[in-house]
Amino acid sequence: MATSDDATTDVPGPAPGKPRAAEPDSLDLFRTAFRRQPAGLAIISANSPEGPVGILSSSVASVGIDPPALSFTISTLSANAQAVRHAPTMVVHLLDAGDLALAQVFAPPGSTRFGPDMQWDRLPSGEPFLTDVATRMHCRAIGHMEVGESVIVAAEVIDVAHSDSHALPLVYTNRAFHVFHEVPIR
Amino acid sequence: MATSDDATTDVPGPAPGKPRAAEPDSLDLFRTAFRRQPAGLAIISANSPEGPVGILSSSVASVGIDPPALSFTISTLSANAQAVRHAPTMVVHLLDAGDLALAQVFAPPGSTRFGPDMQWDRLPSGEPFLTDVATRMHCRAIGHMEVGESVIVAAEVIDVAHSDSHALPLVYTNRAFHVFHEVPIR
Repeated sequence: MATSDDATTDVPGPAPGKPRAAEPDSLDLFRTAFRRQPAGLAIISANSPEGPVGILSSSVASVGIDPPALSFTISTLSANAQAVRHAPTMVVHLLDAGDLALAQVFAPPGSTRFGPDMQWDRLPSGEPFLTDVATRMHCRAIGHMEVGESVIVAAEVIDVAHSDSHALPLVYTNRAFHVFHEVPIR
Repeated sequence: MATSDDATTDVPGPAPGKPRAAEPDSLDLFRTAFRRQPAGLAIISANSPEGPVGILSSSVASVGIDPPALSFTISTLSANAQAVRHAPTMVVHLLDAGDLALAQVFAPPGSTRFGPDMQWDRLPSGEPFLTDVATRMHCRAIGHMEVGESVIVAAEVIDVAHSDSHALPLVYTNRAFHVFHEVPIR
């Protein structure tokens, strides 16, 4: 898949050995249409029976403020994603350019994510989080919607930790990581 | 709200006359955390009993390919958004820099959107679409998930029209429209 083995928002490739669900031409157009759509990047971490898990996601979006909530989409095809899908709570980290190395750790399928070199800790409530990311949100899942082999998760934001890092946002588009240079237009 | 009276993904302000749902400090942090998260922009158009309607959205994301599907979040507080929420089918247009003027037409609350100057047509199936946008997807709603005053819509992509415009993507972040200059990093 595009940004991770688990996060599916960037038009993942077909599952191995599975027939495509629609006309190839139509699917190719769908992929092409979304390929250049820029998206901010996040890492979502949670506890699982096997220990801390985390996925890279380009689908985290604000949903509303009453309650403060966000959404993200995960595949149901990988073990990491399955663990996040079943976690009652999680930590959503919004990534900036200073977090590129973290994004690169979480991107490859099957990579070691909470190894000895990872800077992480646990919230008082137990969830694992990445200590070097400037913005993180402690969340509680409040809804799931299955769409084929993906699931859209709605999560209430319980608590926000945010330090003003002044770093530029990290963006995924056109199958690569980018730094987003903010040049407003009128 | 941030990009439109209807699209809620950019941390909208509180509803008029309603008490805030959480601690103000917590809500402010939530808004601040998402303010700089870049998001691609889209216009979603549909039929309503009163004629064609459309909303500007920064929450359109690819969900998966089996079926090819996307998601978007809309507020339930405006008439335009209510119309899109209840439409069985819709057209999702992904915007690039050449569509800035269109984004500016759809952004202000209560703006006239399908007026005499708008370049639009109807699909053979009847849905209104904007003829000048290079990428559009004919969609059918396949799921709704209510989250407070917002609703997350999952939609299957029935058909894609895509012409390679070579224009840069249009991005919303930090309360302003931006052109996204693709500078990959490694």
